[in-house]
Amino acid sequence: MTYFANIGKIQFEGKGSDNPLAFKHYDPKQVVLGKTMEEHLRFAVAYWHTFNANGTDPFGNATMFRGWDKFDGLDRSKARVEANFEFLDKIGAPFYAFHDVDIAPEGATLQESNKNLDVIVAMLKDQQQQSGKKLLWNTVNMFSNPRYVHGAGTTCNADVYAYAGAQLKKGLEVGKELGAENYVFWGGREGYENLLNTDMGFELDNLARLYHMAIAYAKEIGFDAQFLIEPKPKEPTKHQYDFDSATTIAFLQKYGLKDYFKLNLEANHATLAGHTFEHEIRTAAINGMLGSLDANQGDLLLGWDTDEFPTDLYSTTLTMFEVLKAGGLTRGGVNFDAKVRRGSFEAEDLFLAHIAGMDSFAWGLKAAAKLIEERIFDNIVEDRYSSFKTGIGADVVAGKASLASLEAYAMQNNPIVNKSGKQERMRLMLSEVIFSV
Amino acid sequence: MTYFANIGKIQFEGKGSDNPLAFKHYDPKQVVLGKTMEEHLRFAVAYWHTFNANGTDPFGNATMFRGWDKFDGLDRSKARVEANFEFLDKIGAPFYAFHDVDIAPEGATLQESNKNLDVIVAMLKDQQQQSGKKLLWNTVNMFSNPRYVHGAGTTCNADVYAYAGAQLKKGLEVGKELGAENYVFWGGREGYENLLNTDMGFELDNLARLYHMAIAYAKEIGFDAQFLIEPKPKEPTKHQYDFDSATTIAFLQKYGLKDYFKLNLEANHATLAGHTFEHEIRTAAINGMLGSLDANQGDLLLGWDTDEFPTDLYSTTLTMFEVLKAGGLTRGGVNFDAKVRRGSFEAEDLFLAHIAGMDSFAWGLKAAAKLIEERIFDNIVEDRYSSFKTGIGADVVAGKASLASLEAYAMQNNPIVNKSGKQERMRLMLSEVIFSV
Amino acid sequence: MTYFANIGKIQFEGKGSDNPLAFKHYDPKQVVLGKTMEEHLRFAVAYWHTFNANGTDPFGNATMFRGWDKFDGLDRSKARVEANFEFLDKIGAPFYAFHDVDIAPEGATLQESNKNLDVIVAMLKDQQQQSGKKLLWNTVNMFSNPRYVHGAGTTCNADVYAYAGAQLKKGLEVGKELGAENYVFWGGREGYENLLNTDMGFELDNLARLYHMAIAYAKEIGFDAQFLIEPKPKEPTKHQYDFDSATTIAFLQKYGLKDYFKLNLEANHATLAGHTFEHEIRTAAINGMLGSLDANQGDLLLGWDTDEFPTDLYSTTLTMFEVLKAGGLTRGGVNFDAKVRRGSFEAEDLFLAHIAGMDSFAWGLKAAAKLIEERIFDNIVEDRYSSFKTGIGADVVAGKASLASLEAYAMQNNPIVNKSGKQERMRLMLSEVIFSV
Amino acid sequence: MTYFANIGKIQFEGKGSDNPLAFKHYDPKQVVLGKTMEEHLRFAVAYWHTFNANGTDPFGNATMFRGWDKFDGLDRSKARVEANFEFLDKIGAPFYAFHDVDIAPEGATLQESNKNLDVIVAMLKDQQQQSGKKLLWNTVNMFSNPRYVHGAGTTCNADVYAYAGAQLKKGLEVGKELGAENYVFWGGREGYENLLNTDMGFELDNLARLYHMAIAYAKEIGFDAQFLIEPKPKEPTKHQYDFDSATTIAFLQKYGLKDYFKLNLEANHATLAGHTFEHEIRTAAINGMLGSLDANQGDLLLGWDTDEFPTDLYSTTLTMFEVLKAGGLTRGGVNFDAKVRRGSFEAEDLFLAHIAGMDSFAWGLKAAAKLIEERIFDNIVEDRYSSFKTGIGADVVAGKASLASLEAYAMQNNPIVNKSGKQERMRLMLSEVIFSV
Repeated sequence: MTYFANIGKIQFEGKGSDNPLAFKHYDPKQVVLGKTMEEHLRFAVAYWHTFNANGTDPFGNATMFRGWDKFDGLDRSKARVEANFEFLDKIGAPFYAFHDVDIAPEGATLQESNKNLDVIVAMLKDQQQQSGKKLLWNTVNMFSNPRYVHGAGTTCNADVYAYAGAQLKKGLEVGKELGAENYVFWGGREGYENLLNTDMGFELDNLARLYHMAIAYAKEIGFDAQFLIEPKPKEPTKHQYDFDSATTIAFLQKYGLKDYFKLNLEANHATLAGHTFEHEIRTAAINGMLGSLDANQGDLLLGWDTDEFPTDLYSTTLTMFEVLKAGGLTRGGVNFDAKVRRGSFEAEDLFLAHIAGMDSFAWGLKAAAKLIEERIFDNIVEDRYSSFKTGIGADVVAGKASLASLEAYAMQNNPIVNKSGKQERMRLMLSEVIFSV
Repeated sequence: MTYFANIGKIQFEGKGSDNPLAFKHYDPKQVVLGKTMEEHLRFAVAYWHTFNANGTDPFGNATMFRGWDKFDGLDRSKARVEANFEFLDKIGAPFYAFHDVDIAPEGATLQESNKNLDVIVAMLKDQQQQSGKKLLWNTVNMFSNPRYVHGAGTTCNADVYAYAGAQLKKGLEVGKELGAENYVFWGGREGYENLLNTDMGFELDNLARLYHMAIAYAKEIGFDAQFLIEPKPKEPTKHQYDFDSATTIAFLQKYGLKDYFKLNLEANHATLAGHTFEHEIRTAAINGMLGSLDANQGDLLLGWDTDEFPTDLYSTTLTMFEVLKAGGLTRGGVNFDAKVRRGSFEAEDLFLAHIAGMDSFAWGLKAAAKLIEERIFDNIVEDRYSSFKTGIGADVVAGKASLASLEAYAMQNNPIVNKSGKQERMRLMLSEVIFSV
Repeated sequence: MTYFANIGKIQFEGKGSDNPLAFKHYDPKQVVLGKTMEEHLRFAVAYWHTFNANGTDPFGNATMFRGWDKFDGLDRSKARVEANFEFLDKIGAPFYAFHDVDIAPEGATLQESNKNLDVIVAMLKDQQQQSGKKLLWNTVNMFSNPRYVHGAGTTCNADVYAYAGAQLKKGLEVGKELGAENYVFWGGREGYENLLNTDMGFELDNLARLYHMAIAYAKEIGFDAQFLIEPKPKEPTKHQYDFDSATTIAFLQKYGLKDYFKLNLEANHATLAGHTFEHEIRTAAINGMLGSLDANQGDLLLGWDTDEFPTDLYSTTLTMFEVLKAGGLTRGGVNFDAKVRRGSFEAEDLFLAHIAGMDSFAWGLKAAAKLIEERIFDNIVEDRYSSFKTGIGADVVAGKASLASLEAYAMQNNPIVNKSGKQERMRLMLSEVIFSV
Repeated sequence: MTYFANIGKIQFEGKGSDNPLAFKHYDPKQVVLGKTMEEHLRFAVAYWHTFNANGTDPFGNATMFRGWDKFDGLDRSKARVEANFEFLDKIGAPFYAFHDVDIAPEGATLQESNKNLDVIVAMLKDQQQQSGKKLLWNTVNMFSNPRYVHGAGTTCNADVYAYAGAQLKKGLEVGKELGAENYVFWGGREGYENLLNTDMGFELDNLARLYHMAIAYAKEIGFDAQFLIEPKPKEPTKHQYDFDSATTIAFLQKYGLKDYFKLNLEANHATLAGHTFEHEIRTAAINGMLGSLDANQGDLLLGWDTDEFPTDLYSTTLTMFEVLKAGGLTRGGVNFDAKVRRGSFEAEDLFLAHIAGMDSFAWGLKAAAKLIEERIFDNIVEDRYSSFKTGIGADVVAGKASLASLEAYAMQNNPIVNKSGKQERMRLMLSEVIFSV
């Protein structure tokens, strides 16, 4: 309880107090559309951004020095564990998420790395039991170590592939030990830097083989977490194979993997792929593939993953609208894959940023619920497609139409009358709803 | 033979002459990798850009006035037919391609439009027989007419859907009549402007229904062209459903349509989706889906479809490299979906631009053939993946590995040694090959 | 009063009624920071988008047919004049803006075009007097006519340059006749398509010459409108010379023109140049160059000028914050350079879209005023820079520091302490303020 | 001579040998347009990329381990000095360039940092004298250290500003000591992360004050290097003040600094700003501001600074074309601000990459010279603007025209005839020229 000693002065517990940044919109127990807000939102803190990141960027050194940085090696890892549960408690988030290398130092050998993990996993398990906090998901980092320079599941080096398999095996074991609700695959180096030196077909075959092995092993050890794949188009790799929802679904379909996976979608990854976050969620939803969310926001005038805390209410509202329409997050959650800016290096900023993100998502949840309860957009959409309820439209839907029957109908149906899509109207309605909940 | 009267002064026929822009690299009968260049390249002229476009852009009026513009209605359409075959002859291209509305004026009714089509199709058929020129593909334009404001196969209006079905039916009949090698579907308005007023799942279901009807009707009338879908991410629509190769493949797989279609890939559409053209071709190829090419190039500093004639030799070389590695274009071709710039409004520019495009593709073909014949990149790639030929790598490929066997191997395999990917070297090699063929 | 007959059914006059889209936030007479809202906002309707546009896009034909489209030629122009003043009245906007070709048809000769203009200008003047509505600005369209294919003030053809000068002369006369508050220069074709065939230095010299002639002529005829240049980076031209605020300022400084011009800034042009709208306004403001606003919004996932009605409250708030901090719009205004979507083709949409835009700007004005009155950001900024108020900081500002004096100070000042920039906190504060006005 | 022990096997000295990657196009002593190639190109090696970079990226750890990495602290710095001169010798480059922190470790205090610099600068000076190699430019890194988190010359913290001044003072002294031909200012953190917490006008005033102090101090110590400012739009900062050539020129003009600076232009910075490299060079040239080049290339499908070695011959040709037309680089040079890819981690890659870059620039120089000698584009351009040589055009250029005289001319000059810009033709000509040198 010492790592946030310098935070103690701020009464974060004082929700609803005069503090302008305490939660105004997030009341965990408030019921919205039949569930409490915390059941809907299932907030998770991202270990790597909150406890490992230090403010470096490609042109700058660390700006952030935390309480745990006075320790080294496993001691530092242990201090981070304590910080994690203290932070989850203070901020009121029920979940956390990590990569293996976030929680324990890599050793000189696989054996040593695994041993380090065992020490920390035991500590995490203990703290989970004490606190009631849970692991939303874990994963293994198969992109930072130089061995993965040419990929992990898609490497050109069979030795590296073997190491990746071993690391993945341990990751599944860790997830089982900690009762992870989900297990995430993120292909940070699964892609290519240069198509000319790359056998793309072979690499994708190998990636599918690794996934099949993972499914088999999870079954073998009885690890029943939801498996998630996280699309991202680029960065660090020039082109990553899991470019977006649709690309990932195509891959899973081709290799007979679709029934074993859902998608972990990230807002900033969506925009880097040229899509809105809503688009990616909708694409997943209509394919039955919505798994979990990495909540953040990018800067559309910048071309890389800025991982900002989500504070745009249009985006949080439309995100939660899509989530609610898709039936909710079930085993997934809203994981803040977001980092404080390099210039927001004070410990307090970690709290302020999470409060801003949580409150913005809660606000968005309420606005989305209002949109749904009052059928503000649903009525418009229902009306737009009503011509498919009867006559030739109903024939089409029922599979009774042919080009010939359509032609016969069209020949005598002149003129055709369309109606306005009324987008401008809907946009102001959206502002009115967001800023009135 | 009068439409290019003002072109007669230029001796385009003088291939290899002193004219610096006559074909230096394209000799149709030259054999490259076992086939003539014209068999490899199967050049096609795009009717719409060459005979219909007039230089308008969103901020500017027509700058181009051709011989046929002194006529109106069906007479103008007839004049364009003559111009088409004269141009194909002079330029030495064996194929052409069109949308229905390019060749004949739309009438006030479906019946009248079809009647206009019949007149022109008869004339085209006659000219094909006389000239030996062929139709690479035809399609129907289901995006320009205001009736398609909310889509065609994905419209919210069943009456519009019926009309689209009727138009598509006629398109298949026209293709059969003219012996088209391929039939293209391009979803210019199949997508959404605003996700909020859109039932995306329903619209995609309807699109699949239309494709199934098209397959049934083509079978019924014995039209055996290769069916092609052409991806494009956006413009005119905010988001088009056929975003890129992978997205289109996901759609086709989901709806049981994959065996009936291949892809018509366009360079500028690839870049608008955030990909290189090579990437899109490779993606299609490893899925057995490469159909045909719309050859052009975009401007990566501009955000819309500029449809420039392809003159970047790096791109034409890498394109042909991917095509050759994929087994060639078979029934597809290299269709110049490219337009002269608004400022290149003289008739001569139509020739110069096509010569630049054809010569650049021929040059690229030769460079690609050299890359393949001398195994310049193949040796590098083969070496890179050689660890999968034996030992643990071979086990992976054979499906004999498990996470446990990989772990056992990795535990005793330390350290791992990677090799440089040598991209910088490959790039200079590429320049050397291109500029030495 | 007949052109919006089909609009009559909607009681737009019923502000504050149950109609969810009537003005909720815009009350023209409400006083904000010492001025009425209408004095702050000075809304203008863009003639071209509202009365000339018909829904065409590069892939589609017209979808919009208005009352005036049953007329032709000058009769249609006259009908548009009536529609303009009826619309201004119903929507409650005090200003309008136009290009010459929007209001009157171009003739076969310059003389004929000018004659057409005279007819309509007389009618506009008469209607202005009757209604009290005013002309925010006029301009001449020197980009749509094919003569301007290679530019107007930067054309390579002296005959075209001469024509542009003549057209500009008439534009200044029209502005004077109608008492325009501003006159706008927009370089739609002033730039290059291809740098290789372009003498950029010469073209910019010529552009400056034209501006000097315009200044001289305006002085000669006593036209005292504020002169505005409107930056845009690209589209229609590959590269336009007035790329953004800074580029335009560099040009004006170089040619001794800076004192004669201010900037007309457009939101969507800012984002196409890679900037926020706020950035462009701030850049203009710190150079004393803020003139007027073209209010709209783009889609940052699309690469062209979408000219959507502004409905993002973050953007309208930050825009008005910058405007208020810069001292307001003075002779400029908020001109809706925005168009209804192609699918919003009903006359009603014209009203709904303007209401959405006006209400969003009014909402933004109130939020910005609150930010300023309560010094919500000002206090933070003042505190951030406080070290420049005393000691070494004050020396720097006073011009008393040298590298040597800074070194002497730095040598004994160790360590340096920085403070967090607290961006995350400010973002949630922004949402809270927008919500609470 | 031990650091490249593993390089010895490759006979780089064997220029023109069978090695496909030895220099084929670069012969330093070959005369092109009246000067030797080495006089034209003035190649420089970038210390930071070649001797400091280790392959880290935001998602990955170091992949590169060099001979000098077995040392620490000043010993490592000394080893790098030896490596630098060995590399310059083997690769045949006459210049190098560095930031202060590249050559010597930062100390705990300014005094200690300066002391470390003194040790290394003495060693560099000695090696320069022995080898004849020269310093193209030096600079100080005022962006990596956490003290510069909010900027250096534009920081909100006066203590940081003072430190920056002291560091800059030392940088000028180092440049003088080593006889640097140029001194570069790069504003990596001079800009803003968030406009709301930023006083942009004040920050720019302060930046100008720092530049004025630098000019004064350089004069005081008799350091007569050419001063260069290097534009970059973003990254690491959200927005950097020196966005592009035009923005930088506007700043210099405003603050009376234009006569003291020229521009150091970087290819990848140009494209991040939305421009071609040629555009940035031309913009500088027509303002008399071309200083030096940072040669690299970006990936236009990626949104960050990839700093790849320049191998695109279209770009190197057009770059050298602009440089030659502008009168050459004079005191500037072609500095390879380029890094080997993370996957190209072998020492050999450093050589291969520089060879690729140097040969591509040499090739581009020859092609550019041919374009100029044969007036391939000049004739086209001269013809395009010929209407300004006589008549009304000549009047315009001579300053004799007015809007009235232009109108009088235009009234009787009907119709206007334009000519095609023939861009498509020029593009194929460009390929032909590159091929044939």
